[in-house]
Amino acid sequence: MTAAHTLAPASDRHAHVTESAFKFFHELRVRWAEVDRQAVVFNGHYLTYFDIGITEYWRAIGYPYPDALLAAGVDTFVVKATIEYHAPAYYDDMLDVLVRVGRLGRTSMQFLVEIRRAAEHLVSGELIYVTADPQTRKSSPVPDFLREAISRYETTPPIAK
Amino acid sequence: MTAAHTLAPASDRHAHVTESAFKFFHELRVRWAEVDRQAVVFNGHYLTYFDIGITEYWRAIGYPYPDALLAAGVDTFVVKATIEYHAPAYYDDMLDVLVRVGRLGRTSMQFLVEIRRAAEHLVSGELIYVTADPQTRKSSPVPDFLREAISRYETTPPIAK
Amino acid sequence: MTAAHTLAPASDRHAHVTESAFKFFHELRVRWAEVDRQAVVFNGHYLTYFDIGITEYWRAIGYPYPDALLAAGVDTFVVKATIEYHAPAYYDDMLDVLVRVGRLGRTSMQFLVEIRRAAEHLVSGELIYVTADPQTRKSSPVPDFLREAISRYETTPPIAK
Amino acid sequence: MTAAHTLAPASDRHAHVTESAFKFFHELRVRWAEVDRQAVVFNGHYLTYFDIGITEYWRAIGYPYPDALLAAGVDTFVVKATIEYHAPAYYDDMLDVLVRVGRLGRTSMQFLVEIRRAAEHLVSGELIYVTADPQTRKSSPVPDFLREAISRYETTPPIAK
Repeated sequence: MTAAHTLAPASDRHAHVTESAFKFFHELRVRWAEVDRQAVVFNGHYLTYFDIGITEYWRAIGYPYPDALLAAGVDTFVVKATIEYHAPAYYDDMLDVLVRVGRLGRTSMQFLVEIRRAAEHLVSGELIYVTADPQTRKSSPVPDFLREAISRYETTPPIAK
Repeated sequence: MTAAHTLAPASDRHAHVTESAFKFFHELRVRWAEVDRQAVVFNGHYLTYFDIGITEYWRAIGYPYPDALLAAGVDTFVVKATIEYHAPAYYDDMLDVLVRVGRLGRTSMQFLVEIRRAAEHLVSGELIYVTADPQTRKSSPVPDFLREAISRYETTPPIAK
Repeated sequence: MTAAHTLAPASDRHAHVTESAFKFFHELRVRWAEVDRQAVVFNGHYLTYFDIGITEYWRAIGYPYPDALLAAGVDTFVVKATIEYHAPAYYDDMLDVLVRVGRLGRTSMQFLVEIRRAAEHLVSGELIYVTADPQTRKSSPVPDFLREAISRYETTPPIAK
Repeated sequence: MTAAHTLAPASDRHAHVTESAFKFFHELRVRWAEVDRQAVVFNGHYLTYFDIGITEYWRAIGYPYPDALLAAGVDTFVVKATIEYHAPAYYDDMLDVLVRVGRLGRTSMQFLVEIRRAAEHLVSGELIYVTADPQTRKSSPVPDFLREAISRYETTPPIAK
């Protein structure tokens, strides 16, 4: 377990990110209430970590969720999530949630997520979101301002699906 | 731990309720995700159990939350919660959440809650709710139809504060 | 929303199960704390629902998790989860969690899960578990007694991978 | 709502702490999954916030929970929690969790907690913990090293009960 009081300096801990296809990461600490009787993070909580990472990604590209999206008449809804569990996270671990947009479709976006404890890759995720009308929840095109903000931000350009 | 496959018949398990001041109880099973590294239910989850118990109490007296209340122009907001932890609950335990209204004020209600594993009393709770306008969240009188439904339902009459 | 007080009788509500490849289902009610600002169940909570369904599946086939497995020197760990969100679940909904074993490998099991609100199919899930030594967490063969219990229980036989 | 992109500088946001009886605070951001259909943080999640605050308090005084305590043969168990809800917290709010030890008894500690959004006081909490043997869970004296670490740290000295 990477106890907080023995952590490497933040600059060292995050060196692995710059060598990856990811530009964005968000750091969080595992909470007591998230760890189960097996002494590991319960599998469902990684979707909360993904959600936090994506929330911070929206903020990083200048469109905080949901207000900046709702103001433009669009909301996002997850339609598919895939999670691969390589190694467990433990109580009090400092984790990096790495997030990038892998594909940009006409009405959908693929987010790729990795959970790492320093250089160790614990969990991989893929989330497919559709953009939709907030009221009717019918799918609508990904707005151009989002495409541009994402493309401007990313170092690994998203694939246009 | 009261494992499910060795449970006494439901009629025996709940005998303790009829000897108490409580008429209403709701049964639930402890989930894996609610149990922490100490192998006991995390202290915060009891407020979720209380909330479930009170939701079912509203249903039992004929006013399911929140629709039946909102239809009458009233919502409820918790203003104080007190929890006493006597003994831990474990994974897979079948618990009874006992609920009754202890006091009925002009704009507030005191709910008393007990969590039991068969006759064993694990946790006590007290929740103070105020009735309020759903939009402004300003306190408003407890509607007469709720007072009457509660008084009609309870065997131990609430104290008028 | 399927409000509890307007529910069809349980026999009618679950008729859809017998027409499916699933034999096992477990019923649960959506909690207030599981519903987000969009008024729908937060996407991560479905993994908790899946976990509850699989816990009850183990109980149904005679091997309650984890004691019956640990007694045989084996534990299970999820290595991959896939969730498809077709339609949202709402507060107070009564949901069926349908569970079956789709594939039985040498050291892994594929669980298929569906979340339904009466006949309406809301969410699909696939969970890959490995059987492993509880201490070392190294993979170990799925015990024969589990294979037999699953094959005896299921009406749609698992594929041997 | 205090949106992140319009936040005052951290130094200004926390000015209120130095005017209080609290020395320690921990900052956290409200997660999407913690906010309910009323668009406010669900009442039970404040106990998770309290738990995080107290975890960080232990770290701040040099005894990270639980390892530093377990190494000294002691664990802590909450026996009573009281929460007063003055005003709601919203999605994406940056909150300060203020923590101090109010009383130090022979085998118990009273933690006082406040949740603030900048200077606004949202929630008050009181948590009574007992120190106990980790195995038997029988109460044992608060170790002297903890008393000293707390007294050394606090600017408002705990009352000896």
